[in-house]
Amino acid sequence: MFAVTILGNNSALPMHDRHPTSQVVSYDENLFLVDCGEGTQIQMNKFKIRRSRIKHIFISHLHGDHYFGLPGLLTSYGLNNRQEPLYLHAPEPLMEILDLQLKVASTQLPYELHFHPIPEKGGLLVNEKKIEVHAFPVIHRIPCWGFLFREKPKPRKLDMDRLIQYRIPSSFYPRLKAGDDYCLPDGTLIKNEEVTTPGPESLSYAFCADTIYTESFLDNIRGCTLLYHEATYLDSLRERAAERFHSTAKQAAELALKAETNQLLLGHFSSKYEGLDEFLSEAREVFPSTQLAIEGSCYSIS
Amino acid sequence: MFAVTILGNNSALPMHDRHPTSQVVSYDENLFLVDCGEGTQIQMNKFKIRRSRIKHIFISHLHGDHYFGLPGLLTSYGLNNRQEPLYLHAPEPLMEILDLQLKVASTQLPYELHFHPIPEKGGLLVNEKKIEVHAFPVIHRIPCWGFLFREKPKPRKLDMDRLIQYRIPSSFYPRLKAGDDYCLPDGTLIKNEEVTTPGPESLSYAFCADTIYTESFLDNIRGCTLLYHEATYLDSLRERAAERFHSTAKQAAELALKAETNQLLLGHFSSKYEGLDEFLSEAREVFPSTQLAIEGSCYSIS
Repeated sequence: MFAVTILGNNSALPMHDRHPTSQVVSYDENLFLVDCGEGTQIQMNKFKIRRSRIKHIFISHLHGDHYFGLPGLLTSYGLNNRQEPLYLHAPEPLMEILDLQLKVASTQLPYELHFHPIPEKGGLLVNEKKIEVHAFPVIHRIPCWGFLFREKPKPRKLDMDRLIQYRIPSSFYPRLKAGDDYCLPDGTLIKNEEVTTPGPESLSYAFCADTIYTESFLDNIRGCTLLYHEATYLDSLRERAAERFHSTAKQAAELALKAETNQLLLGHFSSKYEGLDEFLSEAREVFPSTQLAIEGSCYSIS
Repeated sequence: MFAVTILGNNSALPMHDRHPTSQVVSYDENLFLVDCGEGTQIQMNKFKIRRSRIKHIFISHLHGDHYFGLPGLLTSYGLNNRQEPLYLHAPEPLMEILDLQLKVASTQLPYELHFHPIPEKGGLLVNEKKIEVHAFPVIHRIPCWGFLFREKPKPRKLDMDRLIQYRIPSSFYPRLKAGDDYCLPDGTLIKNEEVTTPGPESLSYAFCADTIYTESFLDNIRGCTLLYHEATYLDSLRERAAERFHSTAKQAAELALKAETNQLLLGHFSSKYEGLDEFLSEAREVFPSTQLAIEGSCYSIS
């Protein structure tokens, strides 16, 4: 089970019962928190997120609507007597702010908080058994990163008839699943493709944070299963979007098309829009497989 | 019109649809914000608080549940292009945190933010035409202050029959209202009490923040019209309350009795209690004029 649940889909000013950015990516039993705008812990209560399962938190950038909920969440973990270490991947200056906040509150967290500043050029942040998380720079008014959640390549499927035909021992099956060739006792090489077929496709989710329209990170998101892209404005405000280093629904759809993603999810809607239908219709004209990020909804990455 | 509206009535861990501490004190057209826990600006939307009317914000102490909503509120004022200056009365280290947060966000507020660190021993913070606000130290795990909102003495009422009898000129009426005596042309002194009666009682609201049970600030709150006192626990957890520098409902009521207040308002309820009825009954046994601080409710100070 690979999915993303939206906790906040609005841009900076909370309005229309919409909240600042926060998402929970779930993979099997693991939860990853992406951004943590003000009120995230309250949204977690509302949508019954099992917050104790979160081991990694990612903060895209240091505009408040993406992290003002974090100090409260970290404190609440402490009040709940969390013991498991927590890994925070965030822009480097955040640590000083958190340190100061803990110091003035005279608070000692009962769990280890490991702070990992995101490298300027991004890179591999998390390497779990079945999934990895990469950061990549996007283009915003201040340093900002997107995150790619990618399943590791899945084992190739064995063609049992062929394996028996070639008398390949079962002890070698794991290596065949990983893609290795096999050498028969007489020296004949059996190419992997002769005895296996590709495993299921590896799924991926790209969160593109806050960004101006740019193709600069296209290589990072190409072919992803689900692309989340901000759409702060409709295309009628394309210039304002650019001035503020944001994107429009149409631009998000154009990028989805170029990235050859399967599906597009739009979020980070400006408070100036009470209704969101036009975001959907505008984007679908360019990229039909578009959905709106709705708070409390869970989107399967499949 | 003098009243307080509750935006958050819970202690640190938001639960049971209760939020961390925040209150809006209204006096005529002026609004004062007292504490600003996470989600305060969202609660303001919900309860239709006219936030542009807030000129002074008071932060009692630097535990997150009393100020983690402040950076978001200050930023939102900026996004709404607020122009009026804002006065922030708070423990001194808060300024460094806010400065850092604004710096990393590369944000320049479009309005003047005047930071006034609360003096260690408290004192007069705000002196408006009809109302003044004082801080007084309470006793908590870290430095913490309560706030007293007090109407200035109201003008004495003129006894028109007597004024005519003594032929006191109307130009002297303002001085009579302020309590001065009058000297007749023949040198006779007319004592103020002969020609006036006391004006209406001056009303006051005392917010006692987070505190252990103590009578150390009794003089600051004596005779106030409405006393807000924290009641994190029921009296069955009196020891835990003391360990954590908090109070129980019964203790709050005992202090209300000693302070000879008219009414008591209880808040800052621990998340361990889902229902709040027992807080009310426990306190009312000692001090009958007790109410629970309920989010969205407005309590008249009269």
